[in-house]
Amino acid sequence: MVALRVNKSHSEADQPSSPVVRFEADQPLKLDAGTLLSPFQVAYQTYGDLNADKSNAILVCHALTGDQHVASPNPVTGKPGWWQVLIGPGKVIDTDRFFVICANVIGGCLGSTGPASTDPATGKPYALNLPVITIRDMVRAQLMLIDHLGIDQLFCVIGGSMGGMQVLEWASSYPERVFSALPIATGARHSSQNIAFHEVGRQSVMADPEWLGGDYLVAGRRPEKGLAVARMAAHITYLSEAALHRKFGRNLQDRDRPTFGFDADFQIESYLRHQGMTFVDRFDANSYLYLTRAMDYFDLAADHGGRLVEAFAGTKTRFCLVSFTSDWLFPTEESRSVVHALNAAGASVSFVEIETDRGHDAFLLDEPELFAAIDGFLRSAARAKGLAVR
Amino acid sequence: MVALRVNKSHSEADQPSSPVVRFEADQPLKLDAGTLLSPFQVAYQTYGDLNADKSNAILVCHALTGDQHVASPNPVTGKPGWWQVLIGPGKVIDTDRFFVICANVIGGCLGSTGPASTDPATGKPYALNLPVITIRDMVRAQLMLIDHLGIDQLFCVIGGSMGGMQVLEWASSYPERVFSALPIATGARHSSQNIAFHEVGRQSVMADPEWLGGDYLVAGRRPEKGLAVARMAAHITYLSEAALHRKFGRNLQDRDRPTFGFDADFQIESYLRHQGMTFVDRFDANSYLYLTRAMDYFDLAADHGGRLVEAFAGTKTRFCLVSFTSDWLFPTEESRSVVHALNAAGASVSFVEIETDRGHDAFLLDEPELFAAIDGFLRSAARAKGLAVR
Repeated sequence: MVALRVNKSHSEADQPSSPVVRFEADQPLKLDAGTLLSPFQVAYQTYGDLNADKSNAILVCHALTGDQHVASPNPVTGKPGWWQVLIGPGKVIDTDRFFVICANVIGGCLGSTGPASTDPATGKPYALNLPVITIRDMVRAQLMLIDHLGIDQLFCVIGGSMGGMQVLEWASSYPERVFSALPIATGARHSSQNIAFHEVGRQSVMADPEWLGGDYLVAGRRPEKGLAVARMAAHITYLSEAALHRKFGRNLQDRDRPTFGFDADFQIESYLRHQGMTFVDRFDANSYLYLTRAMDYFDLAADHGGRLVEAFAGTKTRFCLVSFTSDWLFPTEESRSVVHALNAAGASVSFVEIETDRGHDAFLLDEPELFAAIDGFLRSAARAKGLAVR
Repeated sequence: MVALRVNKSHSEADQPSSPVVRFEADQPLKLDAGTLLSPFQVAYQTYGDLNADKSNAILVCHALTGDQHVASPNPVTGKPGWWQVLIGPGKVIDTDRFFVICANVIGGCLGSTGPASTDPATGKPYALNLPVITIRDMVRAQLMLIDHLGIDQLFCVIGGSMGGMQVLEWASSYPERVFSALPIATGARHSSQNIAFHEVGRQSVMADPEWLGGDYLVAGRRPEKGLAVARMAAHITYLSEAALHRKFGRNLQDRDRPTFGFDADFQIESYLRHQGMTFVDRFDANSYLYLTRAMDYFDLAADHGGRLVEAFAGTKTRFCLVSFTSDWLFPTEESRSVVHALNAAGASVSFVEIETDRGHDAFLLDEPELFAAIDGFLRSAARAKGLAVR
């Protein structure tokens, strides 16, 4: 059973059920770690049609445990795409009008080159021999995909959480390629507390003896327990205290009184265990290490001499930032500091703070105010770019 | 090395470096789980002298990972007692005037009966054969100790966090035995989010293959990695985001630039790893399971038909509650709801919310406002009880 999963996961890394662009030795990926990654590949999905002048492309950047299946069923889980409530024919991001692209990030585990991919030097999975990946590396690979697709300027780059970091990086590194940018529930750097939670998750994975120093795939094993605990800890940070109280409170699971044991007595315990167990079926443990590390390293101000305004100097990109009042992973304050920097850089920027108790995960949910904000911003940007508006 | 630690931990459970009261078969401990624990023992420390009319006794209740060594060096770590800043000769809780008692809780691992203690039925450590312990069980055992010491009424019961839960339980179950009560940074129940964090910690311990279904002691092994990860996750909740930012920010550890690897690059990572590693040297993993479970089960209102006011009906105990603005484990709101219930019950109650960025752990630190609040409350209570006041 474990071996079956491993085989699936390993082949998924090299042969995903998505289109793939493979960049050979003549097109290496320059990494912040100081090395070149080559060959490498990017797996992606597209929705809708690119118009004649290639001006209607929207790039969606996914979060830590997301993937390219943003608006169609996920082939691994069978569930709807992670933003299918937002993106599709006639939806807020209308694929009858826009050409939507979403690529699995470098370091991921659903088809783009990551630690589970085959290292051409050894014929075995990279595991920890893959250099550490940064948010900028992910964006650099996406740029090569966009070039490959022949798109000069993206109409919009949008994403939440780690996806929002990529949006900020895109707007900072390639402003002329981004007409509008929509970073949601994110920040220009990862806070000390966020690094702390990620470190707990990594230590949990690495403490699992099945991790084998990262070489579990060749051994036909998987650090499932360690990864499940990592996911459980992380999942708490995606919700708010108020939402947990509203959804679960101190309600017991299938029973009238506590069992006076260590089973999942409380609904919140059973919910968290389920989150942990289902996660390990769809995610690679080493990818989890690499992607959490990429988020930890992200610090856009530090990349510009400590001044965030310099990250956006002279930008002509139109921005809309969105935060959620109960998001304690990326509190409003983090978005506000980006807004301040954008204002100081003279950028066109709007900012929407949405009142909700649903925490960080609100960006993935059917949140009417979020959809209204995205809709309004895209309409305004489409008019400014001269695209047809419904 | 591991075996050495195990022997030490195991013998510590039965023969601690503290006085012990052993309750034999004629004095079983009635447990909420519905069974009797017998024989059992309580290890405790005292400081100062009990006065002639036995009216100057202060019981200190320790928190999750605390112990009875509240005001003298800890024999396991060699560090000062955990509240030695507050308690001692001439200090705020002046042992020249008060007789201070602190007992290791039932379920703990420093001398009172817990999962590492020898089960008389098998001659081996109880491990998971110990019934689940509740806060009320801990207090029931403390009451037996207080009876043993011949003390009719405690002048004050004081404690923070899980210690504060015990204070509330004391005041609710034995109001005539408690002249004054000082619950700090606590609540009348454990919230859904707090249960969630505890469940992550328990799953981390139980995921460690060295845990062996709880039977690691007889096998001469210890689930050190799982327990360390549990401690790391919990430790984040004891601090505030602001304190983490102030103390660590995104500062790197002993280096100018990130290593692009999975070593502890950031100071916060190295700090957390240290917290995890030192914890396993002084704490028993099964005790961690039992004591987190006890906190999760605590719900004083539920024990009184869902009405917290009923928990304190007719009380004559004088109360002072203290909370900290940046404590997100036991937010001020939790203390406030206890204050409301006490007001509704007609109790004498004062409430101090202290402005600090130090989070939940503030109750353990040299916090002048906390000391002033305790000092003022004890002076007033001493006058009311007719004790000599400095």
